[in-house]
Amino acid sequence: MQTWSERDQQVIWHPFTHQWKDRNPITILKGEGCYLYDDQGKSYLDAISSWWVNLHGHAHPYMTQKILEQLQQLEHVIFAGFTHPPAIELAERLLQILPPNQAKVFFSDNGSTAVEVAIKMVRQYWWNHGKPKHTFLALEDSYHGDTFGAMAVGQPNYFNAAFEPAAFHVVHLPRPNSDNINFIIKKITELNESNDIAGFIFEPLVQGAGGMLMYQDEHLDRMIALCRNLGILTIADEVMTGFGRTGAFFACDHLDNMPDLMCLSKGLTGGYLPMGITTCTSDIYGAFLEKDIAKTFYHGHSYTGNPISCAAALASLDLLSSQDCMDRVVRIVYQHHAFMNRLKKIPAVEKIRQCGTILAMDIKSEGPTNYFNSISDTLTNAFLKRGVLLRPLGNILYIMPPYCMNNNELEIVYSVVEEVLTELQV
Amino acid sequence: MQTWSERDQQVIWHPFTHQWKDRNPITILKGEGCYLYDDQGKSYLDAISSWWVNLHGHAHPYMTQKILEQLQQLEHVIFAGFTHPPAIELAERLLQILPPNQAKVFFSDNGSTAVEVAIKMVRQYWWNHGKPKHTFLALEDSYHGDTFGAMAVGQPNYFNAAFEPAAFHVVHLPRPNSDNINFIIKKITELNESNDIAGFIFEPLVQGAGGMLMYQDEHLDRMIALCRNLGILTIADEVMTGFGRTGAFFACDHLDNMPDLMCLSKGLTGGYLPMGITTCTSDIYGAFLEKDIAKTFYHGHSYTGNPISCAAALASLDLLSSQDCMDRVVRIVYQHHAFMNRLKKIPAVEKIRQCGTILAMDIKSEGPTNYFNSISDTLTNAFLKRGVLLRPLGNILYIMPPYCMNNNELEIVYSVVEEVLTELQV
Repeated sequence: MQTWSERDQQVIWHPFTHQWKDRNPITILKGEGCYLYDDQGKSYLDAISSWWVNLHGHAHPYMTQKILEQLQQLEHVIFAGFTHPPAIELAERLLQILPPNQAKVFFSDNGSTAVEVAIKMVRQYWWNHGKPKHTFLALEDSYHGDTFGAMAVGQPNYFNAAFEPAAFHVVHLPRPNSDNINFIIKKITELNESNDIAGFIFEPLVQGAGGMLMYQDEHLDRMIALCRNLGILTIADEVMTGFGRTGAFFACDHLDNMPDLMCLSKGLTGGYLPMGITTCTSDIYGAFLEKDIAKTFYHGHSYTGNPISCAAALASLDLLSSQDCMDRVVRIVYQHHAFMNRLKKIPAVEKIRQCGTILAMDIKSEGPTNYFNSISDTLTNAFLKRGVLLRPLGNILYIMPPYCMNNNELEIVYSVVEEVLTELQV
Repeated sequence: MQTWSERDQQVIWHPFTHQWKDRNPITILKGEGCYLYDDQGKSYLDAISSWWVNLHGHAHPYMTQKILEQLQQLEHVIFAGFTHPPAIELAERLLQILPPNQAKVFFSDNGSTAVEVAIKMVRQYWWNHGKPKHTFLALEDSYHGDTFGAMAVGQPNYFNAAFEPAAFHVVHLPRPNSDNINFIIKKITELNESNDIAGFIFEPLVQGAGGMLMYQDEHLDRMIALCRNLGILTIADEVMTGFGRTGAFFACDHLDNMPDLMCLSKGLTGGYLPMGITTCTSDIYGAFLEKDIAKTFYHGHSYTGNPISCAAALASLDLLSSQDCMDRVVRIVYQHHAFMNRLKKIPAVEKIRQCGTILAMDIKSEGPTNYFNSISDTLTNAFLKRGVLLRPLGNILYIMPPYCMNNNELEIVYSVVEEVLTELQV
């Protein structure tokens, strides 16, 4: 009889997977808390929250119960001309915790579409005002998703080289630091003389897929303030950073200046179901509130506002809003911080950095410091062999646990990281 | 106390909704079978399957049970390097019912992303072969989704005028008929002399959002056969037409020639949860099966292959594959056909057309025959008042019921359509 993995290889094409090299995926039958269990009975501590989505652990009884209640009531209804309580309650509760200038909630199905919606809202905002603008500002090393619009604002690289996603003009600025922030401010001011800069999109404080690259809130604050003064709309892509990852509900909570639009996904449903959300200010919504039918925002997906995904998001917010959960987040932040001192003693480790519950480091190796460094396979396999799911981005290792991971489990992850990295020859 | 609808208007921005005109959405609290129930206790027969997604009715006990079982087992796991039984079983079962040349299944979250994935696979297929090609063929009046890549292959129109989605070059061909098919064949042959035509994307037999525009399988067959001879890859966008809508499992089942890629969504999960799927041939997959890491397909979404959505899709296939369900589809096809004779007697109705369970017609009116004809509001409200959810695309009225709709319920829909249309002044 064939194994699950053999059957998988015959029929499935996996995402971000090198089909020749990355054969034989591990088959997961069951999840519980921070653990995943494969078809050989082996368990894995999920130290990356299953691609940065899981907040409260796998197969959580409260999540199951709330989703079940919604399934028995209303699984879905067209969201044009119709609405339903789970979408309304979710929008209300999100607006209570988002920066106070966020006023309207637009639903879609994932992070890429949340970004596409934000870009389209910004483009059409200027078009509706009779002042079309075509250029976006973004950051170098940015990643905003894999659809053509999202690729266009991302860093041009191997991921999208085959597609030349020139849906519009994008200028990539350096990630700000103390040395270059004045240059960046000057550059934006000069670029804006074209009167063609529609918006500025960024992953606040941490660039995820680009390599868990972190930067200071004060510099981003200056850039947002400048954009506001110049009339450039700002989009915070909080797909990864949202829902507690940076130690606050949202990365933008660390800022004095608020973005005009925000993109949410991943942690939004607690790691359960696909959902994307784009929020915006009243000013942006107002540009579409006109009698002229051509000024309507013609965007939608069949499952927009899906009640089951909304129920998952509401249940996750219930859990996330409890004092217990926020205490767990704070505890992980402190545990990570203490672990940094142990990491500093390992010769193979450099550039140790932390933002909230995200702990990242570069691993010294012969290849380039990016996603394509082949050391990732060596490390991933060494971690999996020891029962820990970690998946470095090339030679960049990061730990991003579900918030339910207790100190004993964290210590297992830390010890395995220490052991594997200490054995590395550098 | 505020109503749900008032609360909705304060926080939610609805898809494809004119914010100034389309206020006060109806709040649905509950669904059961073909009925939706609002917060005033009023019921509506869902005659458009909630945006073409629902197959077996709302809040179906079997769907609930199978989704619950999966929730208790494994809600989600990263799909790179890992797999799980629901995804494997779903892929295996789909490949059993899809055209036999389809070999691999790639998961995403909605129809737009399924199309983006197909376009990117085609672009990178040529790139990996060292023969980059940049142009796509599509049909006039096509709609393939709202992300930038999907917009680019869609008909340029009001929907996307603000965005100029020029991610790549697209040539739109007329929808084929007996009069123009020879011209189209000649045109494709001439265009291909550039050696730059990467692929041809089409909604087989029925163009949905373009206005339920139907065309003959024999003409599409000739176009696909020509593309195969010329080395142009073909993409069947079956997001709407899949899973029984045309009377067969897939619209492509009506064809002699098979497409190279297929896009699925909507009915895939029975109308329950967001999921998109792109399938392709071994030839296409083979172009990515190389040692060179740059030839990897770098595309993925966090919830790719989500086990809960897979469980919904498997449960829907269980229901869909039963003889009972296929009998219901055939019954609806016959009922629609008989109703056409009644429609012919109504002066306001013209161009009555049917493809499987989809019945469509143009309503004579002063405005243009397209999505922007304002008669849609008048008709929608008249239908809703009578307890039937129908939502014309401008002056194009269509009926697309869930397969569980029985003859009594169908007769209610037909009678309401007759009554409303007979009262129209033409």
